[in-house]
Amino acid sequence: MTDSSDNTAPPPPEGRARTIIFGSQHDRIMARLEGLDPELAAHIQAFAYDTVYDSSALDLKTQELIACALLVSLGSPPELRTHLRGALNAGATEAELRGALMLCVPYLGFPRTVAGFEALKNYLDAQEKKKG
Amino acid sequence: MTDSSDNTAPPPPEGRARTIIFGSQHDRIMARLEGLDPELAAHIQAFAYDTVYDSSALDLKTQELIACALLVSLGSPPELRTHLRGALNAGATEAELRGALMLCVPYLGFPRTVAGFEALKNYLDAQEKKKG
Amino acid sequence: MTDSSDNTAPPPPEGRARTIIFGSQHDRIMARLEGLDPELAAHIQAFAYDTVYDSSALDLKTQELIACALLVSLGSPPELRTHLRGALNAGATEAELRGALMLCVPYLGFPRTVAGFEALKNYLDAQEKKKG
Amino acid sequence: MTDSSDNTAPPPPEGRARTIIFGSQHDRIMARLEGLDPELAAHIQAFAYDTVYDSSALDLKTQELIACALLVSLGSPPELRTHLRGALNAGATEAELRGALMLCVPYLGFPRTVAGFEALKNYLDAQEKKKG
Amino acid sequence: MTDSSDNTAPPPPEGRARTIIFGSQHDRIMARLEGLDPELAAHIQAFAYDTVYDSSALDLKTQELIACALLVSLGSPPELRTHLRGALNAGATEAELRGALMLCVPYLGFPRTVAGFEALKNYLDAQEKKKG
Amino acid sequence: MTDSSDNTAPPPPEGRARTIIFGSQHDRIMARLEGLDPELAAHIQAFAYDTVYDSSALDLKTQELIACALLVSLGSPPELRTHLRGALNAGATEAELRGALMLCVPYLGFPRTVAGFEALKNYLDAQEKKKG
Repeated sequence: MTDSSDNTAPPPPEGRARTIIFGSQHDRIMARLEGLDPELAAHIQAFAYDTVYDSSALDLKTQELIACALLVSLGSPPELRTHLRGALNAGATEAELRGALMLCVPYLGFPRTVAGFEALKNYLDAQEKKKG
Repeated sequence: MTDSSDNTAPPPPEGRARTIIFGSQHDRIMARLEGLDPELAAHIQAFAYDTVYDSSALDLKTQELIACALLVSLGSPPELRTHLRGALNAGATEAELRGALMLCVPYLGFPRTVAGFEALKNYLDAQEKKKG
Repeated sequence: MTDSSDNTAPPPPEGRARTIIFGSQHDRIMARLEGLDPELAAHIQAFAYDTVYDSSALDLKTQELIACALLVSLGSPPELRTHLRGALNAGATEAELRGALMLCVPYLGFPRTVAGFEALKNYLDAQEKKKG
Repeated sequence: MTDSSDNTAPPPPEGRARTIIFGSQHDRIMARLEGLDPELAAHIQAFAYDTVYDSSALDLKTQELIACALLVSLGSPPELRTHLRGALNAGATEAELRGALMLCVPYLGFPRTVAGFEALKNYLDAQEKKKG
Repeated sequence: MTDSSDNTAPPPPEGRARTIIFGSQHDRIMARLEGLDPELAAHIQAFAYDTVYDSSALDLKTQELIACALLVSLGSPPELRTHLRGALNAGATEAELRGALMLCVPYLGFPRTVAGFEALKNYLDAQEKKKG
Repeated sequence: MTDSSDNTAPPPPEGRARTIIFGSQHDRIMARLEGLDPELAAHIQAFAYDTVYDSSALDLKTQELIACALLVSLGSPPELRTHLRGALNAGATEAELRGALMLCVPYLGFPRTVAGFEALKNYLDAQEKKKG
């Protein structure tokens, strides 16, 4: 159900969160960000992932469930798909992911939450199709 | 460190999340909401807590860490304090709580996150003072 | 101008707002929401429509004009189209709808409001085409 | 229940919305805005009120109910109190005002809505005290 | 690099900002806005541009860099493209534009900022293609 | 009018933006942030100021005018005061600061902008009082 099957080697101490969250999409995602702006890509790698994520007291699964909820609060930008996959890569079940999105209803209301569930459906449908 | 010490009886199957999150503040919080609007209070109890929270695949600690992050995204309204306490009541450590707030930095930026850490400091300082 | 022409029978006491707002799109909209998540669909039906909307002191037209403005504040997600149609189904004129959107200018600024007027234009153009 | 009792003369054709919404607070509010920035005050008067509000196809009561909901979406800044009073001045009942705020629950979630009901309670309590 | 090459005549005292920002796209943009709502188009012209922009103590380049950052805060709606071009038309370099977008990282976080850089890339790619 | 009078020595190459923006408040601000969370304080210093700000193609005055507008978009949290002072410390005039805030009207609407002007008035009044 996740695309981390190719990550058989232990992730390096630095970049641990990034390696697991991005999984098989790592190089594609980093190349896309570098295409936008090399400094921006460097900040996302060095600060967001290799500093904030990697120094957290929270396990990666919990971090990614929180990340998904925060991205729903921002109107479900494309990053939501990356972190829905990231949460599954970090060990979350689909039911747990639905729990994180549903919790957005009382805090953010239905429209933001519906957009989050749509991103999840689009991701799961695409995964299903790949397998088919 | 939490104020749930008086919840010795097992929480009723309905209202489980609400009982643990609100802890010793349960009746005060519900009375305040009823003073604002009785229907609003009823919706928060019956829908937000006894339906959304209680039917989730997520454990309560994870739900409350997500709730704290979502409240930071909303500009840290007074509800943040309730759910910082709720996360601790549900078994989160202070370090985990700081991890949930810090994850807001890459997603929401510093000003929103600083406001979240201020709410945490105010809560912890007040707890310290009570004990003193 | 509206698609409620098939609602000749009096709407049932429960589900009144939902029946009028969704109109001829009712079954399509509910099926789409169930495809996203059955619990989410149930909450939208039982809580948002059959509880909050149906117990309001406001008439449905006013509720829908407010809903349109709130959806503009959220960045005009797809739900805006549903409620532009819902406002017309509930008896609002196009001029009143434009009044609700225009009021967003002083409160939310031009970019959010322009997106709202674009959703209205897209809806009206599609209606015009159907008739043609 | 409202403070428009002193508006016995018919409001001038220009500035109609402003005169009714601000009511007995008109001069105090305009002086406060001029103290912040004279151009800002001029824009609020000439553009927001005497242009957008006064040229609307919507009646003033509906406009003010929408304004209250939009201000809840912005986190209930001090302007909410002005427009809760403005809605009452324009003929809304307290029940209708509660209906407008409650509709924010499905669209914006509970924390934003609770803040709106708190602004309403503070306003109504202050009115009660004045009378006492 | 900009499309203001056809603005050889001095811009009229009124509408100065609008003429420079919209550049060769002026008539297309105004026609699109009038197609949405003639009053909306009139407000954008008369109030936003010919009043707020034209009476500012800030030079137009600085105003447009601020506008770009504000549009990133709103989730990078289509208006961002207009003002990325507007900033270049007003004399900003691509490096300055990247500086304005990058400053959004500490204030708004990465997802909003990434969307801003994507709008910039799309604009620059389209310009490159035109030249090609 | 600004509090940078004590910055007679050239600011060190690293920390340049931070030294000028915080001015005489530098140590107080950093101590307050460390009191909230030492890691958070370290990120603000090392990433936000000594990396993002210090590597920008924009001059510091323009950066601070943009920062003020972005903080208005976030609802004018306490950081706005720091950056109103920072903009003045970096050479902006009061008129330019008012221009940056006024530009928020067409993009964000009046309520957010009014809150920004209130922060400015509070800051200027406090400065006036100190001198008195």
